[in-house]
Amino acid sequence: MSHPKTAAVLEQVDADLDGSLERLFELLSIPSISTDPAFKGDVERAADWCAETLRGLGFTGGKRQTPGHPMIVAHHPGPNANGARKAPHVLYYGHYDVQPPAPLELWDSPPFEPQLIDAANGKRIVARGSADDKGQFMTWIEALRAWDKVAGGPPCEVTVMLEGEEETGSPSLEPFLEANREELARADVAIVCDTPMWSVDRPAITWLLRGMCYVEVTLTGPSHDLHSGFYGGAVLNPITALSRILGDLHDDKGQVQIPSFYDDVEEPPEAVKKSWAALGFDEKAFLAGAGLDTPHGEANRSTLERIWSRPAADINGIWGGYTGEGSKTVIPSTASCKLSCRLVPSQDPMKVASGIEAFFKARAPKDAKLSFRFFGRSPGLKVATDTPYFQAAEQALGDVFGQAPALMGCGGSIPVVGSMQRILGLDSLLVGFGLEDDRLHSPNEKFELACLHKGIRANAAILGQFATL
Amino acid sequence: MSHPKTAAVLEQVDADLDGSLERLFELLSIPSISTDPAFKGDVERAADWCAETLRGLGFTGGKRQTPGHPMIVAHHPGPNANGARKAPHVLYYGHYDVQPPAPLELWDSPPFEPQLIDAANGKRIVARGSADDKGQFMTWIEALRAWDKVAGGPPCEVTVMLEGEEETGSPSLEPFLEANREELARADVAIVCDTPMWSVDRPAITWLLRGMCYVEVTLTGPSHDLHSGFYGGAVLNPITALSRILGDLHDDKGQVQIPSFYDDVEEPPEAVKKSWAALGFDEKAFLAGAGLDTPHGEANRSTLERIWSRPAADINGIWGGYTGEGSKTVIPSTASCKLSCRLVPSQDPMKVASGIEAFFKARAPKDAKLSFRFFGRSPGLKVATDTPYFQAAEQALGDVFGQAPALMGCGGSIPVVGSMQRILGLDSLLVGFGLEDDRLHSPNEKFELACLHKGIRANAAILGQFATL
Repeated sequence: MSHPKTAAVLEQVDADLDGSLERLFELLSIPSISTDPAFKGDVERAADWCAETLRGLGFTGGKRQTPGHPMIVAHHPGPNANGARKAPHVLYYGHYDVQPPAPLELWDSPPFEPQLIDAANGKRIVARGSADDKGQFMTWIEALRAWDKVAGGPPCEVTVMLEGEEETGSPSLEPFLEANREELARADVAIVCDTPMWSVDRPAITWLLRGMCYVEVTLTGPSHDLHSGFYGGAVLNPITALSRILGDLHDDKGQVQIPSFYDDVEEPPEAVKKSWAALGFDEKAFLAGAGLDTPHGEANRSTLERIWSRPAADINGIWGGYTGEGSKTVIPSTASCKLSCRLVPSQDPMKVASGIEAFFKARAPKDAKLSFRFFGRSPGLKVATDTPYFQAAEQALGDVFGQAPALMGCGGSIPVVGSMQRILGLDSLLVGFGLEDDRLHSPNEKFELACLHKGIRANAAILGQFATL
Repeated sequence: MSHPKTAAVLEQVDADLDGSLERLFELLSIPSISTDPAFKGDVERAADWCAETLRGLGFTGGKRQTPGHPMIVAHHPGPNANGARKAPHVLYYGHYDVQPPAPLELWDSPPFEPQLIDAANGKRIVARGSADDKGQFMTWIEALRAWDKVAGGPPCEVTVMLEGEEETGSPSLEPFLEANREELARADVAIVCDTPMWSVDRPAITWLLRGMCYVEVTLTGPSHDLHSGFYGGAVLNPITALSRILGDLHDDKGQVQIPSFYDDVEEPPEAVKKSWAALGFDEKAFLAGAGLDTPHGEANRSTLERIWSRPAADINGIWGGYTGEGSKTVIPSTASCKLSCRLVPSQDPMKVASGIEAFFKARAPKDAKLSFRFFGRSPGLKVATDTPYFQAAEQALGDVFGQAPALMGCGGSIPVVGSMQRILGLDSLLVGFGLEDDRLHSPNEKFELACLHKGIRANAAILGQFATL
């Protein structure tokens, strides 16, 4: 039971696809590279373009200054004009900044001259930002346009928040959410459009995001570097000692040996595990994408479990002693590593951090001094699947695609989701239309035209579905 | 039963100590830094100074060109003039080049303005090269001078070889020995003066030198760096895999786990072990010098055994992944380490090298590719203690010091000893007069005046003793 105008809106989406593409190309032509001060004017121009576009769809608001690049905040009352409460209030998040295109020589076409080329899945849009995130967020902007055209406005109240610093670690985001909490927290649900579909035919909602506990550990032995001839075999060697500890990080079954690591880990419901098994995940292709043949990790777990619903510990960096050309016979004073644990939602990052310290301390030989620097302790996130918004989105996606969405996990984190939950008390629905091979951050970034088209339809349908709640 | 003139020569040594010191200061004033092209003229000047000094003592010969810095070779027939064979032929080795003095700001006086300062053991000479090796080799040059003064020349035939590239890895040494084999191999025994005494009161002969097998190992997993969010827990992480292998390098008793590593290791004779136990080694002070409290290494072995007569394996360097500031969530494509084994004389470096490869291969997980680069495979060396030269040196040292010399091992290697053995077929006696705290290669390098004085006396007495063989 969707909104009565949804069918007409979907027809309007189909009829105006060329227009949608033209507008996306305009935006993709602006090199809004947030990390490079030389492009500050272009970032500003992209912000203006977004603000202007939204005003053209009946939104009020626009650019807001931050210590960095501007934030766009715009509102449309939809059916809730004059303080009425006739429909839910949706907050859309996206980012209009892009990664630098380097290395330029690996691009087949100039990164800011968008191309429409032929590919296996039909037409393909090639440009920096085509998938991350301009093409993705234009799916809901164009859905809003279709609603505007057919119904004079969206069927829900809408707030839009577009960030210009996502590719530089979002330094202004949390302070901005804090400063504008009252205004932004009025929404009922957030929609973040920055995740992939399961395949070009099958939509997805990402509902599990792993968290992180990242630590740098330094083990100090001798007070200064020693000659390994005069001391080798008779004193503590920090590299040997650190390797010995790290060698114990997993047992023979691939289980992480940090104390209490698995205590709070929950299994996903059987129904979810069954749905994952039924996805037809191509493990061979996944491994081949990394140049590997052999699955690795916790015994008796599928690869999807390992990256979506199981915590993991990886050494991301290690260094100590002589690392130059040739040989040097040194026993160094220190050796260091960077260790990150990917956490699932029920794990407490602070408890994991304590476990990591205990793990090292229990194994450090006499005379070894340990120091720990934590660079991030964020919990995993789980989007409740039993809410009316989740189920409405599921329904709308199923209607548009003719297939129920895959309920996916994401091995990495999307910090804005946690920030909005913590600061605004707002749950996010992660409904995106990218594909795993979109080459985000890489040369020849692309977005399939089919993804743009289906994404606009899906967002239009989700709005229609929400309107009935 | 020494040479009848030995007593008079020793008196001459005592009488001319001020002169010896003055001449050493002249040499120490020349900044013969072999590694720095800016000092090429000074290196040449030091070579000329040595050649001139030797000619002043009745030697023939002088500078010989090499592709690098000159070699000094000089001969004195001693009593063997006109082809007679009345006394043994001794080859002295030393090096006239020095390490750079950096960091200059840590010196208490300019490194090439030698000082005589007061210290616990009496007067102390402070300058770059004072111990390594100018002060050391001047002990035998000044002994030759005393013999020249008292007896008109040395009581043995003498060849001198002084190198100018020791501090840059002696690139010209072996080719020079090969090219001049016939001339140099005529000697009966070599004396190398570059090792320490046991203490300022107790002389030493170093007779065990450890060898080396040095390898760089790279473990490759994924074909390119991966995002640890998307892959963490499901693919081979090369750092984790390498740490796991290296963590297995020693067992809980500190025994090296490389296959066949200990097969050929011999125990020193009981008498030697007893003599080491009786040396009164101050383990606490040894460890404190490295900023440590706790002995480490093979169980049930003394520290002296661990560094002198037992092989060891040390990781000298390790690197992989992200090593900069902060965090990066990468699973790198490769991780590498540098591993060196210190070998005792009976071990075959090639067999150890094979063992190292086998050690890694047996433990590498599926999908891991290993590569090995060997940077040095040299055997340990043992100087025979039952030769007349060894026993004569022992006797002379005992006479001069009133204490028998300690028979020491040396955990590091002195490559010239192996080169002379291999190329010239010549055994070396390692009789040196440094102390462990001489700060070789470091700021404020020093040589005790007592060491210079006793060293000259000892060398004079050794020559007298050899003359009777």
